[in-house]
Amino acid sequence: MSTGFFDGIDAITYEGPDSTNPMAFHHYNPDEVVAGKRLEDHLRFAVAYWHSFAWEGGDPFGGRTFDRPWYPQDNMDLAKLKADVAFEMFEILGNPFYCWHDADIRPEGDNFAESLKNFEAIIDYFAQKMESSKVKLLWGTANMFSNRRWMSGASTNPDPDVFAYSAATVKACMDATQKLGGANYVLWGGREGYETLLNTDMKQELDHMGRFLNMVVDYKHKIGFEGQILVEPKPQEPSKHQYDYDAATCYGFLQKYGLENEVKLNLEQGHAILAGHSFEHELATAAALGVLGSIDMNRNDYQSGWDTDQFPNNVPEVALAYYHVLKAGGFTQGGTNFDAKLRRQSLDAEDLIASHIGGMDICARGLKAAAAMLEDGGLEDALKDRYAGWEKPEAKAMLDSSLDAIFDRVVSENINPQPQSGRQEVLENYVNRFV
Amino acid sequence: MSTGFFDGIDAITYEGPDSTNPMAFHHYNPDEVVAGKRLEDHLRFAVAYWHSFAWEGGDPFGGRTFDRPWYPQDNMDLAKLKADVAFEMFEILGNPFYCWHDADIRPEGDNFAESLKNFEAIIDYFAQKMESSKVKLLWGTANMFSNRRWMSGASTNPDPDVFAYSAATVKACMDATQKLGGANYVLWGGREGYETLLNTDMKQELDHMGRFLNMVVDYKHKIGFEGQILVEPKPQEPSKHQYDYDAATCYGFLQKYGLENEVKLNLEQGHAILAGHSFEHELATAAALGVLGSIDMNRNDYQSGWDTDQFPNNVPEVALAYYHVLKAGGFTQGGTNFDAKLRRQSLDAEDLIASHIGGMDICARGLKAAAAMLEDGGLEDALKDRYAGWEKPEAKAMLDSSLDAIFDRVVSENINPQPQSGRQEVLENYVNRFV
Amino acid sequence: MSTGFFDGIDAITYEGPDSTNPMAFHHYNPDEVVAGKRLEDHLRFAVAYWHSFAWEGGDPFGGRTFDRPWYPQDNMDLAKLKADVAFEMFEILGNPFYCWHDADIRPEGDNFAESLKNFEAIIDYFAQKMESSKVKLLWGTANMFSNRRWMSGASTNPDPDVFAYSAATVKACMDATQKLGGANYVLWGGREGYETLLNTDMKQELDHMGRFLNMVVDYKHKIGFEGQILVEPKPQEPSKHQYDYDAATCYGFLQKYGLENEVKLNLEQGHAILAGHSFEHELATAAALGVLGSIDMNRNDYQSGWDTDQFPNNVPEVALAYYHVLKAGGFTQGGTNFDAKLRRQSLDAEDLIASHIGGMDICARGLKAAAAMLEDGGLEDALKDRYAGWEKPEAKAMLDSSLDAIFDRVVSENINPQPQSGRQEVLENYVNRFV
Amino acid sequence: MSTGFFDGIDAITYEGPDSTNPMAFHHYNPDEVVAGKRLEDHLRFAVAYWHSFAWEGGDPFGGRTFDRPWYPQDNMDLAKLKADVAFEMFEILGNPFYCWHDADIRPEGDNFAESLKNFEAIIDYFAQKMESSKVKLLWGTANMFSNRRWMSGASTNPDPDVFAYSAATVKACMDATQKLGGANYVLWGGREGYETLLNTDMKQELDHMGRFLNMVVDYKHKIGFEGQILVEPKPQEPSKHQYDYDAATCYGFLQKYGLENEVKLNLEQGHAILAGHSFEHELATAAALGVLGSIDMNRNDYQSGWDTDQFPNNVPEVALAYYHVLKAGGFTQGGTNFDAKLRRQSLDAEDLIASHIGGMDICARGLKAAAAMLEDGGLEDALKDRYAGWEKPEAKAMLDSSLDAIFDRVVSENINPQPQSGRQEVLENYVNRFV
Ligand SMILES: [Co+2]
Ligand SMILES: [Co+2]
Ligand SMILES: [Co+2]
Ligand SMILES: [Co+2]
Ligand SMILES: [Co+2]
Ligand SMILES: [Co+2]
Ligand SMILES: [Co+2]
Ligand SMILES: [Co+2]
Repeated sequence: MSTGFFDGIDAITYEGPDSTNPMAFHHYNPDEVVAGKRLEDHLRFAVAYWHSFAWEGGDPFGGRTFDRPWYPQDNMDLAKLKADVAFEMFEILGNPFYCWHDADIRPEGDNFAESLKNFEAIIDYFAQKMESSKVKLLWGTANMFSNRRWMSGASTNPDPDVFAYSAATVKACMDATQKLGGANYVLWGGREGYETLLNTDMKQELDHMGRFLNMVVDYKHKIGFEGQILVEPKPQEPSKHQYDYDAATCYGFLQKYGLENEVKLNLEQGHAILAGHSFEHELATAAALGVLGSIDMNRNDYQSGWDTDQFPNNVPEVALAYYHVLKAGGFTQGGTNFDAKLRRQSLDAEDLIASHIGGMDICARGLKAAAAMLEDGGLEDALKDRYAGWEKPEAKAMLDSSLDAIFDRVVSENINPQPQSGRQEVLENYVNRFV
Repeated sequence: MSTGFFDGIDAITYEGPDSTNPMAFHHYNPDEVVAGKRLEDHLRFAVAYWHSFAWEGGDPFGGRTFDRPWYPQDNMDLAKLKADVAFEMFEILGNPFYCWHDADIRPEGDNFAESLKNFEAIIDYFAQKMESSKVKLLWGTANMFSNRRWMSGASTNPDPDVFAYSAATVKACMDATQKLGGANYVLWGGREGYETLLNTDMKQELDHMGRFLNMVVDYKHKIGFEGQILVEPKPQEPSKHQYDYDAATCYGFLQKYGLENEVKLNLEQGHAILAGHSFEHELATAAALGVLGSIDMNRNDYQSGWDTDQFPNNVPEVALAYYHVLKAGGFTQGGTNFDAKLRRQSLDAEDLIASHIGGMDICARGLKAAAAMLEDGGLEDALKDRYAGWEKPEAKAMLDSSLDAIFDRVVSENINPQPQSGRQEVLENYVNRFV
Repeated sequence: MSTGFFDGIDAITYEGPDSTNPMAFHHYNPDEVVAGKRLEDHLRFAVAYWHSFAWEGGDPFGGRTFDRPWYPQDNMDLAKLKADVAFEMFEILGNPFYCWHDADIRPEGDNFAESLKNFEAIIDYFAQKMESSKVKLLWGTANMFSNRRWMSGASTNPDPDVFAYSAATVKACMDATQKLGGANYVLWGGREGYETLLNTDMKQELDHMGRFLNMVVDYKHKIGFEGQILVEPKPQEPSKHQYDYDAATCYGFLQKYGLENEVKLNLEQGHAILAGHSFEHELATAAALGVLGSIDMNRNDYQSGWDTDQFPNNVPEVALAYYHVLKAGGFTQGGTNFDAKLRRQSLDAEDLIASHIGGMDICARGLKAAAAMLEDGGLEDALKDRYAGWEKPEAKAMLDSSLDAIFDRVVSENINPQPQSGRQEVLENYVNRFV
Repeated sequence: MSTGFFDGIDAITYEGPDSTNPMAFHHYNPDEVVAGKRLEDHLRFAVAYWHSFAWEGGDPFGGRTFDRPWYPQDNMDLAKLKADVAFEMFEILGNPFYCWHDADIRPEGDNFAESLKNFEAIIDYFAQKMESSKVKLLWGTANMFSNRRWMSGASTNPDPDVFAYSAATVKACMDATQKLGGANYVLWGGREGYETLLNTDMKQELDHMGRFLNMVVDYKHKIGFEGQILVEPKPQEPSKHQYDYDAATCYGFLQKYGLENEVKLNLEQGHAILAGHSFEHELATAAALGVLGSIDMNRNDYQSGWDTDQFPNNVPEVALAYYHVLKAGGFTQGGTNFDAKLRRQSLDAEDLIASHIGGMDICARGLKAAAAMLEDGGLEDALKDRYAGWEKPEAKAMLDSSLDAIFDRVVSENINPQPQSGRQEVLENYVNRFV
């Protein structure tokens, strides 16, 4: 029996680019085959049980604006009602995946045991609903930042009891993720960082965080979880500084704690922007370092200094992102999660669906453009030309040489390199043929 | 015989905080002993042969504004005149150190051999001048970003000939640094990065940069250079993205290429700011990771998005920076370089001296405040209190435990952590007692 | 009878700069006479009934962290308890002023009439408490951004009913401000702006805002309110764009709607930073344009892209701000409000008091330094020298001349201007003598 | 006789969207009629004689990278050679307009008279070339920021002689603009601002700038120049602060000095970004205030904090910009100038042409999308719906009412407004149908 929340909205179907129906897909046809794979299998869209589905429209200067029937989500009936609405939404959108935090789906209890009981009950409820749904779990995660107990961090908290509470929480969430067949388990360290160095022992906190993540990996192996363990970088907000600043910082951290082969990254466009990077930079960095795991495809406003978490809407940008995803082999376990919030004036159920339609269409356009560029090969050819000198044996040999040997050669051969055009505008024009 | 450049300006002496003489030190008394060491030995000030001494006042919208007698520095006589003025300035300021790039000190030749010849001649000239001067070399470095040959990078250039030219250049600069008894050798990779990912193979470039830095370290050992090898992080400018983005990124890079015990960092306040960090963040990060080497104490305007390279002038900020330097043991080989430019309207020789006086005074005030805070111990005590829980055996044991073991304990002991105040404002007030 | 909230904290007294007592003033001695006026009368400190007193520690990723006894402030008893605690705090700090929004002080009713009834009752309660307190009202204001009714703006709302509700709300708040003898009435247009231009008619919204502000001014005159009407600029947050972007933008708006002689500005350091300006820029701009009214002395983190609203803690910055305030004549009706939030980990009543002590001490140091610089006159003398050429009759005459007449003179007299040093570093060093 | 600079590059023709020829237009067909006007007449493209044509590839860390035959442009022969190459480029691109600064086109003389002589000679040379070319002058302007004489400003300089030199310079440039039939005269105040408030009398400088601009307008009328006088806003760079910060600030300035009906704005995308605004914000603001004059269609990198002045390459952004241009009536005297620089690694003549092709194609796509949206009317209809309440008589009457009258109505009618969805995502999806 329907909750009635989406009354009047039918399952969204693909109508093609010429349709003017705002409640239809114009570019996302799940069954369309691109570069040998169905679009659905390329993109692996997930709805987020917090932002994209359940955001309630608050901001630092005002409370919730959306009316949602599960509010205030403080008992199991409301939690189940929320789940019912969520699964109706998955049915309407046909998204193949969803994601959750523990705190999104269960009422908070008075202590760990009570919260756990609620959590396990709702996981059972999910398991049951998933039997009759096509939706699968892309990832589970623990919310270790909202409750005031986490205000000074989770695994990096100065209080060992919070470390303990964090470990217990993640253990429960990993169990649930495995139970629901989740493809990944994600850790976002929103408060693993500091507000001020004046009260922070950075070295100790990093060591604790490294130890914690090793425990997570150990537990993964212990229970035989086959999904990826992913860390989601973000430079700041809510913390003044977050330890998982960006892809390169995370990689350094993983190396230091011996985890670079065990843990990959869940990269978010908005977090890339906050860190001063383009999304393709973060993707290319992770790919170069072998730690590209999954993505949150929600954009930030470049000119608002906080995480605006908007649905993607710029095809040229999205195309470059998927270009790097495809170049790195595409998603196998990872996928495209919408960690995106409706704008807080977008009150209606129709807005909730339309925003996802727009996001999915934009991603489909981007991915198709990326695949076309890869197939055409223009960018790869240009790269090959530009670095062709390094294919020569004497260039390769130089890399095994030494400063003084090279010095001798420069002097004796009077090496005097002449600049070659980098052709940036030509390549930008090339990309614009596809987007 | 004097060049006359500083006519009318005498050697700067310490006159104490009550003096209103703008051409005297008010806080920097080189011989004052602070925390067991002379101020001069703590601070180890260096004048930079490019910005702080020799900047000529250009910007992207206008040419040089300063008249300097060595202009256009295209022959050895002018290069020597420049050196004469420089050493007169060192005499006036009493700075114990200076720094150079090769391109700052010699005329560019038509090819490597010619440039080298000029370079070696000027190094001889420096060696001779240093015999009768107290000034020492803090570091040497190679300018591998100004000449158009470097426009696409040095060790990361798509053209192997540029890699070769870079290797030969650094070899020559390391030789010269050793010859002059330099305490460090620095690499700043201004164009080791990219303008657009469209024409960039990031993985290959990083591998080449890693290989190059290994060659540098090998050569250091080969010639028995006992100084530190330092990399100077900067996130961007001139490049759109620079590989040595910040301290954490550099550390990840050093680890990946096996160099984390061989190479340290030269951190610049301005570059920290551009990377979205406070200077103390970069210092604390490098200290926590064991790679704090030396500093460039020139600040950026927080609200200009480029490297403004101004002399420091905010005591509270500088005090926090030196607090982290002192906490990490203070400088032994490293020091305080002014990679700072006069504002381009500051035309006069008097401005050149006054700007250094101001910078040195601000640093002296900052260091004294930092030393006083360390001696008082208020911040360290607060840290100890905040993390006291981790001194307990059961907390330490937990770090060797596992998620499921901790889970059991949380459930059985009903661990329910209660937040404690972080006391940020109290600590900020404490700091303000000292600055 | 005391609420007990501040048990153990006595009234704060001045103990001088050498005191190490964290619960005493070290620089703020209300009775100290500086430049002919008591410090208290210079600074005119106000505690804000929202942030500095009553902030509860939420952020976009977590709920309240502070336990406050008036929570959830949904009935008159709790509102009165909150008032009791507030006035106890004023007693402890000795701040001469406070400020409120309507929504800070009364429970929200089910409709306008109910909210009004609550508001008037609490205003009566305030009036009664103020009889036995020294604290006065610096300003009142209306919160027209938190309740969901304001989500699309107040006077700029597409719905005329919201405009009406806004008008009624401001009328009630102005009445209350006058009743309590408030020195100013402030309007901050947090949602007077837009989220996206796609759904915004900017011209119409600006016209409505201009008309609204004219009504406010008319009503001021009608009721004989003698305080200043102040607009508080902020560039964005919560809105993507806020119409009252900065001082210069507000001035253009005031001119367009004929209000430049009726309305002044309440400038906040944090909002200046968000707009890409230094605080002294905003102050100098407002002073140059004759619209400097009052200040909110809470700083932003330069590197967090949102309004961090921290207590001031950098004396050199605060000194420059007060320098411009004093140069413009100092405060008569305006004052120094703390629109500052405790950090959300600063849980304790002691933090609440200590943060204000720190803020007040920093401001006192800044103001004393500013007064000393003005008395010394070094900066004013330097300005006079730099612009001395404009005192000459021929320079003054030129301003009444024309392009072609001046052209003739340049040619005939071969005018060929030579640059003079701007002496920025010398002036910065000068300032550092005082801070 | 050709200079040979573009040897091998023929005139660019329109080949349609399916062409893969990088040296052809794919979207810009000058004769295509869109919304009743030829594309060429809509877009009115101009090549800039400084950046887009003549930029030589320097940056703050390196000198020129491009080899250009007119270098160093220090005599009339080289200046004429430069002009020859420029007009060959106009022939190849078919751009209907170009723009210049005086300093771009003539060698600098030793004094005003010499520079003027050179300038007048080259203007004659241009006039002669324009007789046999289709290219027209979109605007002329004076470079009053590069030579060191302008280091402290032009009309705002503390030295009255610089004010005089500025007046004479602008007089000459306005004469030349009129002689060549220019459609506009532009003033960009790159150094009309300050480096530090410590040495700046902002009020005096603003008054001088206001007086100067009045002289410009007076001279326009005197000589009967029928073009627009345009000011180009930019927030900073090279100055720390520029008085013409953004559109709203300029409008306030124009009002203060009585010029709001005489002067319009030349808006640049890059400068909008630097000021923290979207380009469409600046366009919409100028349109709302009636001062939209012309545009510089060069973008900034959102994440580089300086003016990167890149050719446009993002269709969705460009479409929104032209949407506001068309909504405001389109260009009559104004046009689309490329104040865009090649990337400094783009060395070749082919890059120079390709970058313009790309820019012109992107603008053509954007304009066509904008025209299609306007014709479809979806956005305008949505606006009309959203503000429909204001069409009602009682809403209009309210605007002529008063706070207390409205208050009475709110109470008596129990007005209790209910939020309506802002539908942002729906509108964003709508736009994406067209781009
Ligand atoms: Co996010
Ligand atoms: Co995310
Ligand atoms: Co720098
Ligand atoms: Co440096
Ligand atoms: Co604020
Ligand atoms: Co405020
Ligand atoms: Co520009
Ligand atoms: Co421009």
